Amino acid sequence: MTKFQTKRRVEFCDTDMAGIVHFANFFRFMESAEVDFLQSLGLSVRMEWEGQHIGFPRVSASCNYLSPARFEDVLEIHVSLEKLGKKSATYLFEFFNNGTPIATGIVTSVCCTITDEHGLQSMEIPETLRKKLLEAG
Amino acid sequence: MTKFQTKRRVEFCDTDMAGIVHFANFFRFMESAEVDFLQSLGLSVRMEWEGQHIGFPRVSASCNYLSPARFEDVLEIHVSLEKLGKKSATYLFEFFNNGTPIATGIVTSVCCTITDEHGLQSMEIPETLRKKLLEAG
Amino acid sequence: MTKFQTKRRVEFCDTDMAGIVHFANFFRFMESAEVDFLQSLGLSVRMEWEGQHIGFPRVSASCNYLSPARFEDVLEIHVSLEKLGKKSATYLFEFFNNGTPIATGIVTSVCCTITDEHGLQSMEIPETLRKKLLEAG
Amino acid sequence: MTKFQTKRRVEFCDTDMAGIVHFANFFRFMESAEVDFLQSLGLSVRMEWEGQHIGFPRVSASCNYLSPARFEDVLEIHVSLEKLGKKSATYLFEFFNNGTPIATGIVTSVCCTITDEHGLQSMEIPETLRKKLLEAG
Repeated sequence: MTKFQTKRRVEFCDTDMAGIVHFANFFRFMESAEVDFLQSLGLSVRMEWEGQHIGFPRVSASCNYLSPARFEDVLEIHVSLEKLGKKSATYLFEFFNNGTPIATGIVTSVCCTITDEHGLQSMEIPETLRKKLLEAG
Repeated sequence: MTKFQTKRRVEFCDTDMAGIVHFANFFRFMESAEVDFLQSLGLSVRMEWEGQHIGFPRVSASCNYLSPARFEDVLEIHVSLEKLGKKSATYLFEFFNNGTPIATGIVTSVCCTITDEHGLQSMEIPETLRKKLLEAG
Repeated sequence: MTKFQTKRRVEFCDTDMAGIVHFANFFRFMESAEVDFLQSLGLSVRMEWEGQHIGFPRVSASCNYLSPARFEDVLEIHVSLEKLGKKSATYLFEFFNNGTPIATGIVTSVCCTITDEHGLQSMEIPETLRKKLLEAG
Repeated sequence: MTKFQTKRRVEFCDTDMAGIVHFANFFRFMESAEVDFLQSLGLSVRMEWEGQHIGFPRVSASCNYLSPARFEDVLEIHVSLEKLGKKSATYLFEFFNNGTPIATGIVTSVCCTITDEHGLQSMEIPETLRKKLLEAG
């Protein structure tokens, strides 16, 4: 199965005084690649789903950096669903620059209902949503 | 009257590949200086005030840059209330680095009630809040 | 003459707890729109030009906010060169959301040579570069 | 041995539309806590050391999120040197909010010389610097 692929240009404000993309910004890139992936399925990280307002706050995030990225580089990002638990989803993000792997990231998010009274509360990923993710991921 | 003064260290992630603080970050510095100012008065940019939930979204912001700031510089920021309208407040921020002026910013915010039904709606600044700002600003 | 137009999707991390794009992020959007504009001309904000390393640090930036932008909105940004001085360039950025104007920004940058010995030093915009900007802007 | 401790107030721009600190910002908080730690030893992440210009680019970073942080929370951050390799240093960051642990992060950086010709090149951590880190960490 081919992985979902998206692109992201490095902006000037993504760099730091070392002349390379600041390491924390790779986590922003992962998030926007996840949005690209979800939008390709007609989904969103913030959505109404069968009458409930649900979201996916992160429970863990990590990144390994192999090689720096620089201003105006156009990064290719491969997104794959590594694991789909009852309540959580784990994504793998592989970053390439001109075909060379430069970073690998993993983010795990947990499915939550969002209500005014109770704030964030974890819940099982709705079955119809689970199916859509599994077919695509 | 002496102006309110606060300090802010430049972080590594505040810099860009030109080796200086990215221009957009001065607006973040202004906001945190405003929070310092408001906290010194027992206030906040997001608060309950006499039973209403009020906030101060920005309607305009500008900055003139005289000289760059760099990683680990400790900027001194002077905050003054330039103008207090019926519904809006305008702050002046003067940035100094080792006594030398390096930037001047102006931000105007408008007082709004925040409700679930109507979102943000402009309102007159409550009289008791106005007094507190005028005494301090 | 038609203005240069580009698009920008609002990312989750662009928003703040008020549920709208944080005001400082509009300045990042302006910068990436400027890069889009310059790239369309084969130029960059950081470049070699006739043997010199030149850049365009900002001397002033401002924004007026008419209406908030939200996560997943796709903003349309019109870029126009308002003024081209001997050493400086002033851009106007007009933001639209579904056809409605939501913000207007102005950024002035000064042309500088960048050398290891002297850092940033202002210089006249090279004639060949000036021509390219005037034809497009 | 007591761990190095520092504090960080959550700024408005650190939050996202979920009303909590955006997960990527914890990595910025780790970096500024590392700077606090290094400054307490008279060191910096970017420094001249015995005639060489050295820096510590990141090779990996991870964070586990236990509980969200919100605007104006003052986070307490404990910094400890987990491992000091020949060329690399691994820090552990523990975040507390009012005494409750809310996140744990780990960042590994590699010691590099920075030269104009060769860019970043890994090197052994200088012995005198190693001693200083070990005494403190």
